[in-house]
Amino acid sequence: MSLSLLSSSTDRDITGSTMLCAIVGHPIRHIRLPQTFNALMRQWDKDAVLVPIHVVPDALATVISGLRRTENLAGFAVTVPHKSAALQLCDEASDRAHAVGAVNVVRREADGRLVGDILDGIGFVEGLRRNGVEPSGMSVFIAGAGGAANAIAFGLAEAGIGSLAIWNRTGAKSADLRERLLRLHPELPIRIATADPAGAQLVVNATSLGLRDDDPLPLDVERLQADQVVAEIIMKPVMTPLLLAADARGCRICLGAPMLDCQLTLMAEYMGMLR
Amino acid sequence: MSLSLLSSSTDRDITGSTMLCAIVGHPIRHIRLPQTFNALMRQWDKDAVLVPIHVVPDALATVISGLRRTENLAGFAVTVPHKSAALQLCDEASDRAHAVGAVNVVRREADGRLVGDILDGIGFVEGLRRNGVEPSGMSVFIAGAGGAANAIAFGLAEAGIGSLAIWNRTGAKSADLRERLLRLHPELPIRIATADPAGAQLVVNATSLGLRDDDPLPLDVERLQADQVVAEIIMKPVMTPLLLAADARGCRICLGAPMLDCQLTLMAEYMGMLR
Repeated sequence: MSLSLLSSSTDRDITGSTMLCAIVGHPIRHIRLPQTFNALMRQWDKDAVLVPIHVVPDALATVISGLRRTENLAGFAVTVPHKSAALQLCDEASDRAHAVGAVNVVRREADGRLVGDILDGIGFVEGLRRNGVEPSGMSVFIAGAGGAANAIAFGLAEAGIGSLAIWNRTGAKSADLRERLLRLHPELPIRIATADPAGAQLVVNATSLGLRDDDPLPLDVERLQADQVVAEIIMKPVMTPLLLAADARGCRICLGAPMLDCQLTLMAEYMGMLR
Repeated sequence: MSLSLLSSSTDRDITGSTMLCAIVGHPIRHIRLPQTFNALMRQWDKDAVLVPIHVVPDALATVISGLRRTENLAGFAVTVPHKSAALQLCDEASDRAHAVGAVNVVRREADGRLVGDILDGIGFVEGLRRNGVEPSGMSVFIAGAGGAANAIAFGLAEAGIGSLAIWNRTGAKSADLRERLLRLHPELPIRIATADPAGAQLVVNATSLGLRDDDPLPLDVERLQADQVVAEIIMKPVMTPLLLAADARGCRICLGAPMLDCQLTLMAEYMGMLR
């Protein structure tokens, strides 16, 4: 090769011995994990690189079969719409992944076995702790019963919260979440709630409401009180209408970003990267 | 994500819209293509990254099926021991790839079709031209009848050489190469030669002899004359015993490196990266 090409190399360059990581999703252009994960690998001085893999739903099994036989693959993250289907393609998954019915990270063992987990929930809990909020023992109100709410509810239950109230527009989804939670955490008091968060120490928005300007509020903010902690999963805008209302009423607020930030570290560790 | 992570980002970072390229091989640790290809992408200001994929022979079909369904894949390079097997897995390949029986680069079309080619030979010819040697019309002596010799012989035939003499220790391989060359280039005079390169204008070493210190010479250097051009495919050492002998006898010499350097550009272009 010419010297001009070699001279632009740095010690961060991808080489034949670089470990491979990936994220599978559809669409893929908007995802931010390659930037943040690869920055973390540089911070940790790891010879690993994460690349985006764009795969449509009907090709997921084929692509994951190929990843399974990629000897230098450490693992891959899974994002929408593949989180449930990817669980079925793993050889093994954590209890919480089975309970939620989804994985968002898969590690490739040396023998090619794929082992999955879902880290959104514990990422959220770690994010709370980074904000000085320890959810253990707390009474919690959660708005939402979809994918994110499922992961977060299981993460909170695992962290030892005292009780849970679930509010979701479609009641059947709340009941289904409650039932699956009770299978793994039979001692946890869980009730199906209305939009009224009164009485909970920790109030969580786990719906997508707040992403768009014209979204309705995810819960009845008139009922928020100053002794409550209000946590958000939405990262953009940073201050959602819910957080603005909670702040105005004197509540302590927790932004959406730390969840993802904490999860990044957990994901890297799950794929075998040690700090 | 935290600001500390974002601040280490550069405009060369991999994002969700980065096009993916790969090289499949076994082993993979020693390959240099990620460094040189990615340096070229930076030089060309392309948002594309090439990563190593380590795949053992019995997993090649599975991994290539996965690559076929990777929507953001531009293509992949193929190295030992997969060059012949990969040809069978392509949907389409160039005449020269079929004649040589191998591919070293595969492009993924938008519809997932895999189209292969072998660029070693034309990379070698481009390398000669970069050295000011135009092989068209030349009488050529080639030492070797293995994978590299095959690719180079077809590249030289395509470039319009006047005649070819093939010298290989195993005569049956020379005869086989001659037969396949004649199928694609029926007008080319081709003879099976001994180790004596006398009479050829261009003398090529396409064997691996010269890589190791104790290798015998690939041809009879005592018969080299000052009006001959002597070209090498071995890159390390830069000055092989053959090149040292040729230089001492007053021949014009062509080093091994330009072949790979030219091929790099051809590969990137084949995968759809335009300068």
